[in-house]
Amino acid sequence: MTKIITISDLEKIIAQHGMQAFYLDLLTFLKEDFSRWKSFHKIPRVAAHVPNGIIELMPIWDDRYFSYKYVNGHPNNTASGHLTVVAFGAFVDIKTGYPLLLSEMTLLTGIRTAATSALASHYLARKEAETFGIIGTGAQSEFQVLAHQAVRKIKTVKYFDIDPHAMKRFKKTMEKTGLDLVACSSAEETVKGCDIITVATAAAGHHEILQDAWVKPGMHINDIGGDSPGKTELSLDTVKRAKVFIEFLPQTQFEGEIQRLTPEERSQYIHGELWELVTNEKNGRTSHEEITLFDSVGFALEDYSILRLVLNLSKRYQIGTNLPLIPELTDPKNLISLLGGHHTG
Amino acid sequence: MTKIITISDLEKIIAQHGMQAFYLDLLTFLKEDFSRWKSFHKIPRVAAHVPNGIIELMPIWDDRYFSYKYVNGHPNNTASGHLTVVAFGAFVDIKTGYPLLLSEMTLLTGIRTAATSALASHYLARKEAETFGIIGTGAQSEFQVLAHQAVRKIKTVKYFDIDPHAMKRFKKTMEKTGLDLVACSSAEETVKGCDIITVATAAAGHHEILQDAWVKPGMHINDIGGDSPGKTELSLDTVKRAKVFIEFLPQTQFEGEIQRLTPEERSQYIHGELWELVTNEKNGRTSHEEITLFDSVGFALEDYSILRLVLNLSKRYQIGTNLPLIPELTDPKNLISLLGGHHTG
Repeated sequence: MTKIITISDLEKIIAQHGMQAFYLDLLTFLKEDFSRWKSFHKIPRVAAHVPNGIIELMPIWDDRYFSYKYVNGHPNNTASGHLTVVAFGAFVDIKTGYPLLLSEMTLLTGIRTAATSALASHYLARKEAETFGIIGTGAQSEFQVLAHQAVRKIKTVKYFDIDPHAMKRFKKTMEKTGLDLVACSSAEETVKGCDIITVATAAAGHHEILQDAWVKPGMHINDIGGDSPGKTELSLDTVKRAKVFIEFLPQTQFEGEIQRLTPEERSQYIHGELWELVTNEKNGRTSHEEITLFDSVGFALEDYSILRLVLNLSKRYQIGTNLPLIPELTDPKNLISLLGGHHTG
Repeated sequence: MTKIITISDLEKIIAQHGMQAFYLDLLTFLKEDFSRWKSFHKIPRVAAHVPNGIIELMPIWDDRYFSYKYVNGHPNNTASGHLTVVAFGAFVDIKTGYPLLLSEMTLLTGIRTAATSALASHYLARKEAETFGIIGTGAQSEFQVLAHQAVRKIKTVKYFDIDPHAMKRFKKTMEKTGLDLVACSSAEETVKGCDIITVATAAAGHHEILQDAWVKPGMHINDIGGDSPGKTELSLDTVKRAKVFIEFLPQTQFEGEIQRLTPEERSQYIHGELWELVTNEKNGRTSHEEITLFDSVGFALEDYSILRLVLNLSKRYQIGTNLPLIPELTDPKNLISLLGGHHTG
C-alpha cells in the first residue's frame, strides 16, 4: 500500500501539529539534509518547455530515499480558473524502490520555499532583524512571513503588490498573526527601514522590481521570483554589491538572478551555496553593514526534506489514505495474476 | 480532482473491456502515437543508480499531453518479498499542466512492453507465423503471448525457463487460452521451429541465452532482457546477421543489445527505429528468409500510449477514484487558504 496525502490530509496534519511547529520541524529537517549535502546525488531539474509554460521533474536521492516532484508553471492558467503552479511528488525507499508516500506538493512547495528563505535569513540577516518587507503579495507571501517568524522576532511587516486585491487578501489573512502590518504604495516605500526583504513577483522578463538605490547597508534580500531563464527581479548592481548565496550552481546559473553573470563574474560574486552556511564551511553575515542576498530558485533537496517531514507526521497522526498503487504478490513472476483471471477475456 | 487508478481499478477496466480488446486498442493507440513520432519531445530516461538497483523517470510530451513513469529495478527485491520492478506514472494535460490521471504502472508496463513487441512482430514476423517461443517465463511471458495473439494466428507456444516453478506457473495461467503449449527442456529446444522468439531473461551481465547457431532463416526475435548497460542476452553475431529495429537510438545505444556495437557498426547494422515501420518509411520483412530482430529496451512513448488508453477507458467505464491532489481555488494567489485558517497555529 502507498500512502496518499491529499490537500485535505495536509490541512489536517498542519492543524494537528500547528503551523509554527511545522515550520520549526521543517527548518530542523532542512538543516539535517543540507548538512549532508555531499551524500546526495543532485541534478538540475528536467524541464519540458511546453506551449503555454513549463513542466519540470525534480529528482534527488541519497542512500536512504529517492524523492521527486512534478511541478508546472503556466502563467496563463489563471484566465481559465486554474492555478499557475501545481505540484505533486513521491518519496521512495531507496532499498526497494517502493514509494512510501505520494503527496500533493502545491501547498508543500509554497511552504518549503518560504522555509528555505528563512533558513538563509537565519544565517544572513541581522540577528536583531524585526522589520520584514515583502514585494509581491501572491501565493508565496504569507508563507514567507510565517517561516521568518521561526527564525527572527519579526514585529513589523511592510508589503506591496501592484494588485490591490492581493494586498487586501494578504492583510486579511495576516491580521490574525498580531504583527504590525504596513500597507505600502510602492516597492520603494516597502523597502525603507526593512531588515529583511523578500521579492516574489511573477512577471516574466528582466525587471528591476527592487532598485539598487533603495538597498541599504545591513539588509538581507531573499529573491524568489528570479527563478527561470529570462526572469529576474533585481538590479545586477545589487547582485554585484551583495554577499550572494545560491542553492545549487548547475541549476541556479541558468535560472537565478545570477543567470546574467559571466562565468568569471560568477566566481567573483557568488559567495557560496546554502549548504555551506549550514555546515559552517562559509561565513554568513560577518558585519552589521553587509548586504546579503539569497538568490533562490527552488531545489529538489527542499522537496526531499518536506516530504520526509510529511511522511513522519502522517505516521504520527495516522493521516492519509492507503491505496494499492503497487501490487502485492507472493510470487513476483506472477504479475498476470493481478488481472484476476480476466487475461483470457 | 485527479483520477487515481489502482491495481484493482485496472483489473476492473480490463475485466469490463476484455483483454484481447484491450490489446487491440493498445496496438491502435501505439500505431497512432508512433506514427506521430516527430511530434514528441523525447529524451533518454533519467536514471538514478542506487545501491541495490536503478530508479528511472521516463518523461515524454507532445502538444497535447505530458506523461511520465516512475520505475525501479531492484534485482534483490524478491528476497524480501518485494517485486523487482514496480512503476507508477501520471498523464498530464499540457495546456494547464494539471494531471488528468495518476496510475499504477507495474501491470501497465508488463502489458505495454508485450504490445510493443507485438507491434514489431506485426511488421517483422512472417505473415503466417503460428509457432511462438518464449525463453524466460517470468512476469513478461504471458503478456507476450496474449499480445501476439492480436497480430498473428498463434497456434503453438514453446517455452522454457531455468526455474521449473516459473514454467509450471506459465502453463497453469496459459492453459485457459486453448493454445498448444510445449514445455521445453532447454533454450535450444524452445527455438526449434519457431517463427517468433521472445527472449526475456533477468540475469545481469552479457549472456548468450539464444545462441547464434540456433537462429534460423525467417525467424523474428523480440529481445526484451537486453535492456540496461551491461545486460544482454543475444550473440553479437545474431545482432549483426539480423535486420535490427530499435525504439530510440539515444537511449537504446546504452541499454540494448546494440550497446556492444561501435558507432560505425551501429550505422551498419541498425536498420531503423520502430516508428519508421509504422510510418512505412522503412521496410519491415521483405523476404521469407530474412532474420529480423526487435531490440527493445522500453521507451516512454509506450507509457504515453497506454496511459492515454487507460484515461479513455476509465472515463468510459467510470472506474477510478477522484482524489484532491491538486487544490481547487477561486483565487490562485490565496494558496494559504488551503490551510483552512490553521496557519496561525
